[in-house]
Amino acid sequence: MRLERLRAEVLEANLSLVRAGLVVDTFGNASGIDRAEGLVVIKPSGVPYDKMTPADMVITNLEGRIVEGSLRPSSDLATHIVLYRAFASISGVAHTHSRHATAWAQAAREIPCFGTTHADYIRGAVPVTAQLTPEEVGGDYEANTGKAIVRRIAGRDPAEFPAVLVRGHAPFCWGPSPAAASRTAMLLEEIARLAWMTVTLSPDSEPIPDVLRDRHFLRKHGAQAYYGQQSK
Amino acid sequence: MRLERLRAEVLEANLSLVRAGLVVDTFGNASGIDRAEGLVVIKPSGVPYDKMTPADMVITNLEGRIVEGSLRPSSDLATHIVLYRAFASISGVAHTHSRHATAWAQAAREIPCFGTTHADYIRGAVPVTAQLTPEEVGGDYEANTGKAIVRRIAGRDPAEFPAVLVRGHAPFCWGPSPAAASRTAMLLEEIARLAWMTVTLSPDSEPIPDVLRDRHFLRKHGAQAYYGQQSK
Amino acid sequence: MRLERLRAEVLEANLSLVRAGLVVDTFGNASGIDRAEGLVVIKPSGVPYDKMTPADMVITNLEGRIVEGSLRPSSDLATHIVLYRAFASISGVAHTHSRHATAWAQAAREIPCFGTTHADYIRGAVPVTAQLTPEEVGGDYEANTGKAIVRRIAGRDPAEFPAVLVRGHAPFCWGPSPAAASRTAMLLEEIARLAWMTVTLSPDSEPIPDVLRDRHFLRKHGAQAYYGQQSK
Amino acid sequence: MRLERLRAEVLEANLSLVRAGLVVDTFGNASGIDRAEGLVVIKPSGVPYDKMTPADMVITNLEGRIVEGSLRPSSDLATHIVLYRAFASISGVAHTHSRHATAWAQAAREIPCFGTTHADYIRGAVPVTAQLTPEEVGGDYEANTGKAIVRRIAGRDPAEFPAVLVRGHAPFCWGPSPAAASRTAMLLEEIARLAWMTVTLSPDSEPIPDVLRDRHFLRKHGAQAYYGQQSK
Repeated sequence: MRLERLRAEVLEANLSLVRAGLVVDTFGNASGIDRAEGLVVIKPSGVPYDKMTPADMVITNLEGRIVEGSLRPSSDLATHIVLYRAFASISGVAHTHSRHATAWAQAAREIPCFGTTHADYIRGAVPVTAQLTPEEVGGDYEANTGKAIVRRIAGRDPAEFPAVLVRGHAPFCWGPSPAAASRTAMLLEEIARLAWMTVTLSPDSEPIPDVLRDRHFLRKHGAQAYYGQQSK
Repeated sequence: MRLERLRAEVLEANLSLVRAGLVVDTFGNASGIDRAEGLVVIKPSGVPYDKMTPADMVITNLEGRIVEGSLRPSSDLATHIVLYRAFASISGVAHTHSRHATAWAQAAREIPCFGTTHADYIRGAVPVTAQLTPEEVGGDYEANTGKAIVRRIAGRDPAEFPAVLVRGHAPFCWGPSPAAASRTAMLLEEIARLAWMTVTLSPDSEPIPDVLRDRHFLRKHGAQAYYGQQSK
Repeated sequence: MRLERLRAEVLEANLSLVRAGLVVDTFGNASGIDRAEGLVVIKPSGVPYDKMTPADMVITNLEGRIVEGSLRPSSDLATHIVLYRAFASISGVAHTHSRHATAWAQAAREIPCFGTTHADYIRGAVPVTAQLTPEEVGGDYEANTGKAIVRRIAGRDPAEFPAVLVRGHAPFCWGPSPAAASRTAMLLEEIARLAWMTVTLSPDSEPIPDVLRDRHFLRKHGAQAYYGQQSK
Repeated sequence: MRLERLRAEVLEANLSLVRAGLVVDTFGNASGIDRAEGLVVIKPSGVPYDKMTPADMVITNLEGRIVEGSLRPSSDLATHIVLYRAFASISGVAHTHSRHATAWAQAAREIPCFGTTHADYIRGAVPVTAQLTPEEVGGDYEANTGKAIVRRIAGRDPAEFPAVLVRGHAPFCWGPSPAAASRTAMLLEEIARLAWMTVTLSPDSEPIPDVLRDRHFLRKHGAQAYYGQQSK
């Protein structure tokens, strides 16, 4: 029952990436986890989006062994699993090759917090992973990608830093649900686009002061949040 | 009656920003004022645009106290109110995070008057506010944002300078009605886009001469305006 | 009869600019001329495009005096007329503020012939007019704009150079019909966009050799043209 | 029968370029070859895309002589034929003036392999041809363009390098079918766009390490490919 709903949520999270124009070819995948069962639901690999149904979603355990589903899971499954293991507070992961975020990843540059649009969602620069070693690339590559992400977030709250750029590759995002992870992927693309235009305008642009950044981040996410309508 | 019409106008001004693609997520708000009553009509905070009705608009007095409406007003209400108090000639305010205008705000650069498209609407460079102090950010932040805008426009006619870039944030625009303020937000985005392309093409581009700028601005806005059809 | 057809052609040329996304606000106008009658048909000034009918087109003589039509002609009429007087071989003029072409005009840079796409339509760099003097701006401004264009084309064949950038303003284009002028406006925007990307990629990019440029231009336009299907 | 199917495939490959927004004006053409018959099927020259039918496709032999069809073939036919003669493994060719790939061709710069999106399709930088000599331009220009491409690919596997930028012109792409060639044209445009943004962000960006590039290329194309669903 709960797994059925999760399948539908994961499919919808994948389709929302496509609708937002973030997916090039079949690059892009979103997953969700049922923490109680320890089961991950993820998109199958290389299947056209317009033909996918909830039943095509692949279910695996946290070792990556398929529990349900006749299709191969996304080739990035191992990356997702490493993130779920490391970040206990997250229940959704999304990966895209969205254009502007990917350009920052290709340029191997973190995205500075140039404005309040950024600060409303992410509490500082979006970090970039270190270059994988030839051994890491030649070995369990997808899992090693996940480990590089985890090392980069170490010491931070994944709720304050819900996205990382994998160097020479593209972004990975996460959140409390598959929908939240996909939404972060969309907002990250917007933030990356604004930052790209900012840098092409003035290469020496400076991040906003920490006090302004925190004011905006906490206005939406802190205990004192006063944006939007009060929950009832 | 008049307030009912204003509610509808404010809703429409908000929706026109969305239709023009200027609104990222729920960033963006337009308001109007009934000068005779001293009442401000503004969009509620964080409500999806496709579900908003005129009845959802929030009405406040010029102290920001809610007079009608069960929803929280836009979190930028205090900024709008400061502008209405300072600029007696305006009756509409619009705020967006439109991409190109926001990039200039993030780069903390005024938009030079590079061409006649700009000069047709704004009589010179679009100014950028000063950085708020930590005290201003930590205090009544939204009102202080409005005050920074007013200081930057001081000594100019708000009809000739109907837009400002808030440093590290995004533009605020105004005009004789909510529709006019939203229209300025759209034209500003176009002007900001042209200027971005101009600067990426030639970083040392120069503004047009004042005489050409004024010819264009006054051709549309001066007492001798000869553009468009004559009013009857 | 012939004038009726010309009205319809001029309206269609104007609408094609809008459909191609070249028109910002109401900036943009196309006209045609009946050389036998010496009559110019042009779009009215500041009228919304979606409401224009052939009957709204304004007809003037080559002195700019209105012969038919109750609306004011486009405020750029005088520029069009100067072009018709100077270039006997043209029968259509189009003006837009299309984004990339306008950026080059604002940067006051001619568009070098960076590739064969450009060379297929224009036989060399797209020239930029000189800055108008304060006297020219303060005097008969629109006619003086036309004269600046004519001076810049002097000594060239307007069929080989069917477009000019007016410095700090935007492009004017022409051709053997209103449709041809509008089509040049569209191709110029594409050429300007490619050239902008070329320069942002490599500021020191070089034009293609003259021999390659002429091969392409003449493949489409010369006496030996072999592109497309043979006329019957 | 087989030729009929090829006509339809070639038409569809041409239309897919248009749908993907890669075709400016009538620039763009795709062809296919029936290797058993030694016959090439190609789009006619300068015919509007929305009116083309399979019957309009032109069939020629490998000397470029028309075998079937009443229309002139694409003026780039000779380039296609040189590629079919040189690369025995390909059965489709596609040529566009897609914006970003054309900008790189105009800047005369190869597209470095900046990321895994690139590496998933092309095993290294996308090469640029040498400048044609005046004799080559003045002589059999289109065939000489093909020869310049072949010289640039010499010593490589056309399956690992399925695209070239013709200097000062635009890309040519190929593959095992007309559809595959058109698909490469689309992916190349995406790769060129990402690379353009990467370079405008950081002019000194470095390609990814060879080991990472090969891991991605071979994950999709090698004997050990593990991306997508297993063929049955």
